[in-house]
Amino acid sequence: MSYVAPVKDMMFVVRELAGLEDVSRLPGCEEATDETVEAVLQENASFVQDVLAPLNWDGDVAPSSLANGVVTTTRGFKEAFHAFGAGGWQGVKHPVEFGGQGLPKLVATPCIEMLNSANMSFALCPLLTDGAIEALLTAGSQDQCTRYIPNMVSGKWTGTMNLTEPQAGSDLALVRAKAVPQGDGSYRISGQKIFITYGEHDMAENIVHLVLARTPEAPEGVKGISLFIVPKFLVNEDGSLGKRNDVWCSSIEHKLGIKASPTAVLIFGDGKGEVGEGAIGYLVGEENRGLEYMFVMMNSARFAVGMQGVAVAERAYQRAAAFAKERVQSRDVAGSKGPVTIIHHPDVRRMLMTMRALTEGARALAYVGAAASDAGHHHADAEVRRQNMAFYEFLVPIVKGWSTEMSVEVASLGVQVHGGMGFIEETGAAQHYRDARILPIYEGTTAIQANDLVGRKTTRDGGAFAKSVVASVRETVQALAAAGTGSADLAAIRATLAQGADALERAVEFIASNAKADVRAVYAGSVPYLKLAGIVLSGWQMARAALAAQRMLAAGEGDAAFLKAKLATARFFGDHILSGAPGIAHSICAGAAGVLALEQDQF
Amino acid sequence: MSYVAPVKDMMFVVRELAGLEDVSRLPGCEEATDETVEAVLQENASFVQDVLAPLNWDGDVAPSSLANGVVTTTRGFKEAFHAFGAGGWQGVKHPVEFGGQGLPKLVATPCIEMLNSANMSFALCPLLTDGAIEALLTAGSQDQCTRYIPNMVSGKWTGTMNLTEPQAGSDLALVRAKAVPQGDGSYRISGQKIFITYGEHDMAENIVHLVLARTPEAPEGVKGISLFIVPKFLVNEDGSLGKRNDVWCSSIEHKLGIKASPTAVLIFGDGKGEVGEGAIGYLVGEENRGLEYMFVMMNSARFAVGMQGVAVAERAYQRAAAFAKERVQSRDVAGSKGPVTIIHHPDVRRMLMTMRALTEGARALAYVGAAASDAGHHHADAEVRRQNMAFYEFLVPIVKGWSTEMSVEVASLGVQVHGGMGFIEETGAAQHYRDARILPIYEGTTAIQANDLVGRKTTRDGGAFAKSVVASVRETVQALAAAGTGSADLAAIRATLAQGADALERAVEFIASNAKADVRAVYAGSVPYLKLAGIVLSGWQMARAALAAQRMLAAGEGDAAFLKAKLATARFFGDHILSGAPGIAHSICAGAAGVLALEQDQF
Repeated sequence: MSYVAPVKDMMFVVRELAGLEDVSRLPGCEEATDETVEAVLQENASFVQDVLAPLNWDGDVAPSSLANGVVTTTRGFKEAFHAFGAGGWQGVKHPVEFGGQGLPKLVATPCIEMLNSANMSFALCPLLTDGAIEALLTAGSQDQCTRYIPNMVSGKWTGTMNLTEPQAGSDLALVRAKAVPQGDGSYRISGQKIFITYGEHDMAENIVHLVLARTPEAPEGVKGISLFIVPKFLVNEDGSLGKRNDVWCSSIEHKLGIKASPTAVLIFGDGKGEVGEGAIGYLVGEENRGLEYMFVMMNSARFAVGMQGVAVAERAYQRAAAFAKERVQSRDVAGSKGPVTIIHHPDVRRMLMTMRALTEGARALAYVGAAASDAGHHHADAEVRRQNMAFYEFLVPIVKGWSTEMSVEVASLGVQVHGGMGFIEETGAAQHYRDARILPIYEGTTAIQANDLVGRKTTRDGGAFAKSVVASVRETVQALAAAGTGSADLAAIRATLAQGADALERAVEFIASNAKADVRAVYAGSVPYLKLAGIVLSGWQMARAALAAQRMLAAGEGDAAFLKAKLATARFFGDHILSGAPGIAHSICAGAAGVLALEQDQF
Repeated sequence: MSYVAPVKDMMFVVRELAGLEDVSRLPGCEEATDETVEAVLQENASFVQDVLAPLNWDGDVAPSSLANGVVTTTRGFKEAFHAFGAGGWQGVKHPVEFGGQGLPKLVATPCIEMLNSANMSFALCPLLTDGAIEALLTAGSQDQCTRYIPNMVSGKWTGTMNLTEPQAGSDLALVRAKAVPQGDGSYRISGQKIFITYGEHDMAENIVHLVLARTPEAPEGVKGISLFIVPKFLVNEDGSLGKRNDVWCSSIEHKLGIKASPTAVLIFGDGKGEVGEGAIGYLVGEENRGLEYMFVMMNSARFAVGMQGVAVAERAYQRAAAFAKERVQSRDVAGSKGPVTIIHHPDVRRMLMTMRALTEGARALAYVGAAASDAGHHHADAEVRRQNMAFYEFLVPIVKGWSTEMSVEVASLGVQVHGGMGFIEETGAAQHYRDARILPIYEGTTAIQANDLVGRKTTRDGGAFAKSVVASVRETVQALAAAGTGSADLAAIRATLAQGADALERAVEFIASNAKADVRAVYAGSVPYLKLAGIVLSGWQMARAALAAQRMLAAGEGDAAFLKAKLATARFFGDHILSGAPGIAHSICAGAAGVLALEQDQF
């Protein structure tokens, strides 16, 4: 099944919900005119549809493989990556001075979505490279930026993030890798890193590893971690490649999904390279501030993983919808002469609408977040910047946590729509079910996102910012009340959104008021709180979409069939997804006793 | 990770909720004394733990394979199947006259659960054999029963169900396989059947295929389907094996999960055997009544697949709990000196409790259904039989649909508890996530179960029986009110169960009153209705369990730690699962507009 990028929905969201017009007025974002953005999205769509989408299944059946320390990626990936770089797609959001296009995050975000819908395993390489670029932009010296970034932006080199060690997964305080200063400004790095995405591969000439390690005198815990550049091949003064560094891939993982993307175990300091023992590394920024720099990069990577959720959900939806229109089975429940295509069956409709509503809602929320990030970085007014950054940062764990959790559900429904054929690998639906499962885990599990949402984003100011978000939701409830006279859809959406806002407020109040007195009870409901926020805020965006659609329909603007579908999908979101909000609020506010009652040996 | 059968919970449910004492008083069930049942369960537990559980992972990495029409199963399966038969485990519930143990369904059900927890791929062979035995018991002649059943009960031969064809999945009206009478009482069968579980294998001497096909003069649709026995090897008068019949495995599927179980495409009538062209088959019962017979067997198979859901959920839970007690990562949210095992983290607790509560609730509901089936078959009073059969038949689609849907969620949580390790195949958690995904599909998808629940079980009598079930739930609400003074747990359970009963009643009323006026709206909510029923009725059983636990604790009976855990788990079920009931009722009663609004080309 081929993938067709939903550019129409993307542009609707970019324009009507995320406010492209406002973004294009921001200093430095002037090039992001409506016309340019649509052209970029269309061009990106063509590229990923033609070049990357056809390789998605190939990557699943013929994954990357390791032999003698060399990883060979799926046939076609290397050429596709070359074309990706040549097309300028790695550079969409990166600074013009380093060869990028310098476009706003609001434009880069749909591009990331398409890339991942087309081929999630492939897309991980650019995603990690983006992260490495951002870390260097944040904390790298001018020389480091000039030396490494342009070749990463052009796709000549790629980047990685080396955080995890066997004993240090979610808990980076446990990192043990060592970095010993050599007196010449360089360090020798040794240790083992695991779960390194594209830690070794054959798609680029060099790999720029960014590695967390401890210097000899570093304090224990997260305050003693520094960030280092460890290139696979050292880079000479003239920019040419030098000696093979002492970093080696000892194995790649046998995974449930995203099989084409090699997940490497990397050994630093085996002594097998051309540099003696210990990988040569260069400190980024200051010693012991590695985690702080990594967090900048991780926030961006977390948002991108959220987009992977939207992306795989969209692909699963498209595949299921196409199958449902073709597969003939059983009569219509309301009566029909013979068997009909299964899209006529109400429950197949329900599944497709669920997939569609979840995907559109998560997309809208993420793009709105991207626009807030743009305003947060570029707005002329410092107070407006601050507010927008706060909103973006509030949304990051939600975009990451909620979009990925819902993607697992959507991919599972995608299998279900296919019936027995969904369980046969060749059908393709199962690949999405397998691929999606990593998303709520990597770049911080949903629980880690929820900790961030509760700890950094909600309780730190006693719930004040979270409540201001609820107040914004209520403005939309008011607008629905004003616009909704006579529209059954808007009235229904208003009712479920109002309930959702109340539920979210109850949860915020419970969390804020118990944060000190009963911290375990608060965290017992942390993931339900994240999901509740995901549902209510996505539902909010769907409600805003319904209002925009209603207005445009009344004005005779736009594509009527598209706008009516948007209205119906928003109605569905309200009745089937937002309607669950009060139940979740109950589980947050009343559920801790059941969560925490058992002794360890009762499990 | 080894599997340990939860015999303590099983016996608690069998005794306190399903009423073993009453069952053992039924005519023909007298052998099922408390002592005997516990001994059978313990013995079964030892067998599956020692022999079958260790082969589960082997079957995933070295699945059945096909070469030259011969299927070779995973190494060790053949010997294990021999031991299974020799131990008498195929015959637990089958009649003594054919070599079985003749034990009640209430005893056979925990055995089926254990078997599937230990090794679901293996268990499918006995499961299908059970189905074939039951079809013959229902409609086979005395000669057919004597000829085929004892060898199936002993494990010498196995059985299959041949329903599906490429164009006939859920819709058996589309079956095209032909059966031409030969004048000697036999038929020649030709056609292609797909998705035939253990349709070919090397674990037994013969395979008794039960095949749906049409005779030449048969009417179209489901009323023209007959059921035939087609043995792989013909059976001579003296019971010895004769010629190789004309039925052939042309391929086996490459599946997402349950890989050790060969899923065959079978060709009937290729002319390659020793019998000429056309597989020789024998009519079971009367012509054109095949679907009716198949339904008897399917009800039993559907219940068994529901148990597979409970089984895989239990195994996933045990694996996750064991990991959570070992894996050290991050400090306690309430403060700790160093990192702790992750079972200390509230969100890990929440996931484990969710897995546990869903599994225990579904187990309890299924066992209660099994006891109703026993009373429905064996009670001396015809009216009591009728009532019990009606209850059992009401539960079958719920046990099948709900237990399997929840098993997908539980297996997914099992992966999540493991973090990044969960995505690595060698960890084992991912196998359950893949295996579970077939359960809501085969033996009738969840939508098919929901059609049954709505059509045959709810609207046929205007919702009267469904409302009588709600009334039974309310009796437990009353009992909780009476018992609950002073117990925060019972009070909380009472509140959520009362809400759940109201929600279920609203749904029943909506469905019953709209069944004729707006059938599409009713079916738009059919799967949510099934899930709501699953949640409320499982929650009801957990509430009954809480009452029993409370009573036993007060009386100083039983294992206090176990009973306290049961009470806490029931509380959790109420606050975290039952609390979702009103939202689902909303989606059933108000959600049809959104489900059905779009035109086909808007998808």
